[in-house]
Amino acid sequence: MKIAVLGTGMVGQAVAGGLTRVGHHVVIGTRDPEATLARTDTDGMGNPPFSAWHAEHGDVELATYADATSGADLVVLAGNGFAALDMVTAAGADNLAGKVLVDISNPLDFSAGFPPSLFVKDTDSLGEQIQRAFPDVRVVKSLNTLTAPLMVDPKLLDESTTVFVSGDDADAKATVTDLLASLGHDDVIDLGGIETARGTEMFLPLWLRTMGALGTGMFNVKVVR
Amino acid sequence: MKIAVLGTGMVGQAVAGGLTRVGHHVVIGTRDPEATLARTDTDGMGNPPFSAWHAEHGDVELATYADATSGADLVVLAGNGFAALDMVTAAGADNLAGKVLVDISNPLDFSAGFPPSLFVKDTDSLGEQIQRAFPDVRVVKSLNTLTAPLMVDPKLLDESTTVFVSGDDADAKATVTDLLASLGHDDVIDLGGIETARGTEMFLPLWLRTMGALGTGMFNVKVVR
Repeated sequence: MKIAVLGTGMVGQAVAGGLTRVGHHVVIGTRDPEATLARTDTDGMGNPPFSAWHAEHGDVELATYADATSGADLVVLAGNGFAALDMVTAAGADNLAGKVLVDISNPLDFSAGFPPSLFVKDTDSLGEQIQRAFPDVRVVKSLNTLTAPLMVDPKLLDESTTVFVSGDDADAKATVTDLLASLGHDDVIDLGGIETARGTEMFLPLWLRTMGALGTGMFNVKVVR
Repeated sequence: MKIAVLGTGMVGQAVAGGLTRVGHHVVIGTRDPEATLARTDTDGMGNPPFSAWHAEHGDVELATYADATSGADLVVLAGNGFAALDMVTAAGADNLAGKVLVDISNPLDFSAGFPPSLFVKDTDSLGEQIQRAFPDVRVVKSLNTLTAPLMVDPKLLDESTTVFVSGDDADAKATVTDLLASLGHDDVIDLGGIETARGTEMFLPLWLRTMGALGTGMFNVKVVR
């Protein structure tokens, strides 16, 4: 499948690398590809610049949000929550029309420090905001409940764990469930319509505090039933 | 241990029964014991009246919130979220001073239907509200992330699963962790201070939607790491 991954940060890199590894053709979308490749400084978290990652992943193309999206069969939104709607806008409603958009972003607000609060919650969600703003896109919220390395390689854990899908379009959720299976996810719970994204987004406060308690983000929940 | 369970609903009944089964001396607290025993109608959910349960659990005493609490070594708050602060008030700050209060309530607001929203979240929690209102009580938030039958008998599931504790007093959390172990909980994650109750309370929106998807509340998460 031709997949556009919107976002060049750690999550975008991990998702692009993982999807490439299992045989997909990935184009990463960014606002200004030349500027993205020209940056040589580490980011605010001390991570190396995108160019360092890209030098080791030459099979992953870099293009504008719009160009990456127009050529893709499926789009993954891997940006930070505050930027999400702007990134989808830049990808272009026409380029996205009818396509599946996998939204893995979270509405985290770090303005008051760590742990962050959520800038939308409980009676609305970021997934719903994107679906409302782009009604012709088939939004599926998924993978926002675990750390990026495990999103694309859940077998790094010793046991099978659970991921979730939320979305209004059953075919789109089936497509995403197949994509998840190609990455190694063998327990996918379909929560229902896109409004159920409120559930997975509101899991983040527990995820963040569990990460704090365990001292690592390399964990995931298994729904035992 | 002598344990007061505040609340006569399905959660209070399950917790009282489970604690009795593993050898604790349990007194259930209610506003008006005579009135509670006199009710013969089913509740809003179609559950039988307390008296029917009590007839089969004669070893569990029923007393006022205050009397149940004054004689107890440890208190479990098993009421609904909206009533929680009133129930602790009725139990009495003096009766509770220095004691461990296990808060298993959740701030669920069903006024707009199902699934409920949360009436406190993200920048505060019900656990914190109780701790602030009763500074001499040692509040430990726990067990609010799973259904009542599994709170007291996690081995009903085929695999070990995870529960959490949040609280400001390390000794109180150790006491609760021992109590949890007596019920069969062998994976307890200490999330930190009482403010981490925000995490487990905000898990409810995902728990409720997972229950909807699975068609049962008989599940729990295992944190695989």
